[in-house]
Amino acid sequence: MAPRARMTPPGNAGPARRGRPGHSLDSLLGVAVAVFNERGYDATTMEDLATRLGVTKSAIYHHVPGKGELLRLALDRALDALFAVTREPGATGGPAIERLEHVVRGSVRVLTRELPFVTLLLRVRGNSPVEQEALARRREFDRLVTGLVRAAEEQGDVRPDVDPAVTSRLLFGAVNSLTEWYRPEGGLDATAVADALVATMFDGLRGVARPRRG
Amino acid sequence: MAPRARMTPPGNAGPARRGRPGHSLDSLLGVAVAVFNERGYDATTMEDLATRLGVTKSAIYHHVPGKGELLRLALDRALDALFAVTREPGATGGPAIERLEHVVRGSVRVLTRELPFVTLLLRVRGNSPVEQEALARRREFDRLVTGLVRAAEEQGDVRPDVDPAVTSRLLFGAVNSLTEWYRPEGGLDATAVADALVATMFDGLRGVARPRRG
Repeated sequence: MAPRARMTPPGNAGPARRGRPGHSLDSLLGVAVAVFNERGYDATTMEDLATRLGVTKSAIYHHVPGKGELLRLALDRALDALFAVTREPGATGGPAIERLEHVVRGSVRVLTRELPFVTLLLRVRGNSPVEQEALARRREFDRLVTGLVRAAEEQGDVRPDVDPAVTSRLLFGAVNSLTEWYRPEGGLDATAVADALVATMFDGLRGVARPRRG
Repeated sequence: MAPRARMTPPGNAGPARRGRPGHSLDSLLGVAVAVFNERGYDATTMEDLATRLGVTKSAIYHHVPGKGELLRLALDRALDALFAVTREPGATGGPAIERLEHVVRGSVRVLTRELPFVTLLLRVRGNSPVEQEALARRREFDRLVTGLVRAAEEQGDVRPDVDPAVTSRLLFGAVNSLTEWYRPEGGLDATAVADALVATMFDGLRGVARPRRG
């Protein structure tokens, strides 16, 4: 896969200046993702993007053949970051329960860093081949997580009374909810969120070794 | 609040018959919510609804003054069901941890029963006064859940190292994820989902009283 430069956060793209493109592909992508999340991808036109960027449509066509390519780049950015976590040493060696915890913590980190990109990813419904490919990669990620839960259960580190597929969905339901409520400016950092999530879901709200009431 | 008749599930609305309305407000609402979820509320026109229902627009105007009223009825149905859970005896008496579990189990039941309505609710972004009122009611529900987590923590039944607001968001992140993956025809009933969720989040993936590895 070709390396891609890190994108400038949308907030740093500077004020829109009509007639003076001055946008890299990365800053273009940041603005496009913000507009897609606000208006919905299907409802966004190249004209909308040009207006928001303060450039002509041809300035955008200089970078990409159309909005579908912007969508593909944005979804790949989110998915590549999530899959990169699954290839880290912490996710590939050691007991499955620790690999699972590594993937959960890494996913929280990706969500907080790439919030608009993952938000867009989670809204994809499969309305085009680009979206269908993203959904297929999401399913592959889900299978990988389910496999870790199953292996941890086989190794005796996860309670045997939960279904691995349901559990991995609930776990990533909690992780993915960050796109609904996490705001980087809120003062809560990614590590604190990951700690809370792991504390709650791995050891339980009640806390380890606390007998059940009654 | 005026009583409303239970709505016929969309699947029971029968085939669309052009020129023969035959739709109650409830069957109209079921179809409208399905279309809103497919196309997005903002992108749906009364013409779209009439086409799907196989009726004229005036047959819809016979029931409601516009699509905003359909949205309000749909969001109220989801919200009324969720708030009804919080007024049940299991949610209002007893230790906070048990009230919290009751609200979580009841919410899972509401989500599985009213899946399209809650799906619509969770997509609302506040683009109109109707949507803003729904968001305000969602925030009220969140505060109620956060209060239960805080009270359970004060009563010594929830570990003291988690933030009640973050915890309640993660908990309902997992609950709300049902709108993404739960399918009633999948053979998994609401009780099994609630059991898995409570087992995982209240007692932890590792299971009660299991010492941490290491």
